[in-house]
Amino acid sequence: MALFGTVDAISKDDDAWLAQAVQLAVENVAAGGGPFGAIVVHDGEVVASGVNRVTHDLDPTAHAEVVAIRAACQALGTFSLAGSMLYSSCEPCPLCLAAALWSRVDRVVFAADRDDAARGGFDDRAFYDLFGSDRATWPTSVRNLRVEGCESPFDAWLARPDRTPY
Amino acid sequence: MALFGTVDAISKDDDAWLAQAVQLAVENVAAGGGPFGAIVVHDGEVVASGVNRVTHDLDPTAHAEVVAIRAACQALGTFSLAGSMLYSSCEPCPLCLAAALWSRVDRVVFAADRDDAARGGFDDRAFYDLFGSDRATWPTSVRNLRVEGCESPFDAWLARPDRTPY
Repeated sequence: MALFGTVDAISKDDDAWLAQAVQLAVENVAAGGGPFGAIVVHDGEVVASGVNRVTHDLDPTAHAEVVAIRAACQALGTFSLAGSMLYSSCEPCPLCLAAALWSRVDRVVFAADRDDAARGGFDDRAFYDLFGSDRATWPTSVRNLRVEGCESPFDAWLARPDRTPY
Repeated sequence: MALFGTVDAISKDDDAWLAQAVQLAVENVAAGGGPFGAIVVHDGEVVASGVNRVTHDLDPTAHAEVVAIRAACQALGTFSLAGSMLYSSCEPCPLCLAAALWSRVDRVVFAADRDDAARGGFDDRAFYDLFGSDRATWPTSVRNLRVEGCESPFDAWLARPDRTPY
């Protein structure tokens, strides 16, 4: 596994950053969007924010944290947010938590949780439950068919000395 | 949980769709990108494809499946891919698998798996292992701070009779 940050100290600013994410979430509901907001903080400054834009953008991946991570990478000119922190109005769902891992942020701090989201009618908790269960029991079929040549992309990748890992 | 599809029959075309996804992955390596490709199939037709664009787009969420799902939604004019199938050259990582769940595709079929990805130096398997472990043991800090008012976005959401669930 690539190295990523281990900063775990409570910041005196955590409450303020979370309040900002919650405020974004409330405002997004007023604007017709989903009740989620997030910000990315780097060196004590907000470098990007995001709100849930799934229905607005017709994009099921446009969750607040994903939107904020994408925007932060654009703002900083990098695909790695190592050294940054992600604050979210609600517990990141598996999509958003994995996005946070891939983005290499040092810390994730959230306010409400999957049970609050479930009260709002959202599947965050249901999807966490699926991730903790045997895929064979999922309502969505997830199946592996190991077709001939399926390893060839990785062979090609490893054969490129100029590849950019991430 | 919202309902989603339960189509689980093996399609005689599965091998061909997977071969197409693998070919996209190989071509993407030749173009300087990551070794991953995906397609979304609806009514027997490819409606969108995606390749890994993380380093090209400076977007840690631009995995092949996410790119394909976003493109399919744009092509079909919807934030729900119920009735569609996602084919990927490699096992979707937690980000991509959760994106598939949120997109409501009926089926996910993949060729290579997380162990092949690990051979290529990718963290898919490592992140699956994290999802299966106690967050307190993660190298990335993920912390809940239940600030005052954190439920207010959901209160606002439930108070809107014209909200669009997803």
